Amino acid sequence: MSFSRRKFITNSASSIALSTMIGSILTSCSKKNPKKNKNLISSDSTILFQGDSITDAGREKKLELSNNANSFGNGYAFIATSYLLNSYPKKNLKCYNRGISGNKVYQLSDRWDKDCLNLKPNILSILIGVNDYWHFRDGNYTGTIKTYENDYRKLIERTKKELPNIKIAICQPFILKVLPTVDDSWIEPFKEYQNSAKKISNDFNTLWIPFQDVFDEAIKHAPAKYWLYDGVHAAMPGAQLMAETWLKTVIY
Amino acid sequence: MSFSRRKFITNSASSIALSTMIGSILTSCSKKNPKKNKNLISSDSTILFQGDSITDAGREKKLELSNNANSFGNGYAFIATSYLLNSYPKKNLKCYNRGISGNKVYQLSDRWDKDCLNLKPNILSILIGVNDYWHFRDGNYTGTIKTYENDYRKLIERTKKELPNIKIAICQPFILKVLPTVDDSWIEPFKEYQNSAKKISNDFNTLWIPFQDVFDEAIKHAPAKYWLYDGVHAAMPGAQLMAETWLKTVIY
Repeated sequence: MSFSRRKFITNSASSIALSTMIGSILTSCSKKNPKKNKNLISSDSTILFQGDSITDAGREKKLELSNNANSFGNGYAFIATSYLLNSYPKKNLKCYNRGISGNKVYQLSDRWDKDCLNLKPNILSILIGVNDYWHFRDGNYTGTIKTYENDYRKLIERTKKELPNIKIAICQPFILKVLPTVDDSWIEPFKEYQNSAKKISNDFNTLWIPFQDVFDEAIKHAPAKYWLYDGVHAAMPGAQLMAETWLKTVIY
Repeated sequence: MSFSRRKFITNSASSIALSTMIGSILTSCSKKNPKKNKNLISSDSTILFQGDSITDAGREKKLELSNNANSFGNGYAFIATSYLLNSYPKKNLKCYNRGISGNKVYQLSDRWDKDCLNLKPNILSILIGVNDYWHFRDGNYTGTIKTYENDYRKLIERTKKELPNIKIAICQPFILKVLPTVDDSWIEPFKEYQNSAKKISNDFNTLWIPFQDVFDEAIKHAPAKYWLYDGVHAAMPGAQLMAETWLKTVIY
């Protein structure tokens, strides 16, 4: 990159992102999670977003095209992918969203051949866990925290066995207290799910996307429901915050 | 803002946006359109996006809520608004998308009380024009370039009369040659529509969002259909590029 090109980019960069609140939210959090990252997005990469309704975000599920707005819905995966495709027009990226509303980790396993392994992703992002707790809590699911951790660990093992060079980003599951859905009694038990996800991330040396940490910082700036309208699902500013957190972890 | 706070933001800003291609695309374009802008987003602002299918982007049209992902669809208005809401969590912004697929400027006029004036926007963004040409070209509409300019001028006059303090952003209508929809024969006649929009922007001293200029630069980096899949409607990277162009013009 020539000096003048670099200067253009730097000037534009600072003008685009300066004076945004997200700057301070993200910076506060990244200080708590120091980790040296590098840009993992090499040319011809396939990038796959996996998860539950938060990732799904109303996407269409018949065509399930790559790089297609309708196939991406309107959540963090759409925002992050739009940013990537705009930032790297020459890299020939192929990005998929295959999140499905209501999924728990065992349901990812059930559709993993079709919705992950067959796509041969170079980068796989997984956000899963809130339903594993929520449905157990509501009596609609018998799986416990041990089920979650065991199933999740097996899923990552299977993935790395099949695709040894894959880069995986495990996303921290998150909640915020927003009544009537999420009350105080969620906080402590849900931390166990967050701890399990973190343990798996450490054990498999994956990237870690610190969504809960970022939302804990965000609620210093606006009420919880501003970010997660029911304490679980992202509102527009929450989706943007997630996308920026994801991008910051994966490409910077 | 304290020194340390500014430093955090600047660091984060440069880390988020550095090394993106958009940097150079936007900077190249803004050199052609030097204009001193300031941040127009003051507290308690209502921001309205108006236009046709490019703005509509599949939004739901029953509830038409402010700051709501489903009511925003998945185009540039969703991306720009998610960015705004995340950047200014304390400003109590109220953002609406009221674009409707297929609209020409006279159809905006027909629904202007309900879909603009009654909302009392502080900031109004309008992107209209491609259907005025396209439907005329196809023989489905008798309005000419004069109809477009006259109708558009009356719409802005009416808006400024009703809401004297409104800030208006007129978006440059745009096309790219993508067969079979948009061929070479579109380019020259469509420039007349772009010139009319620009004349109105100048006459009423509105902000000007230079979408065509930015897309003309973008096609140096990837084929036209990468940005506008049919030459008219934005693909994901095109929507991101539009959102960044809009933000750069309106808030920086």
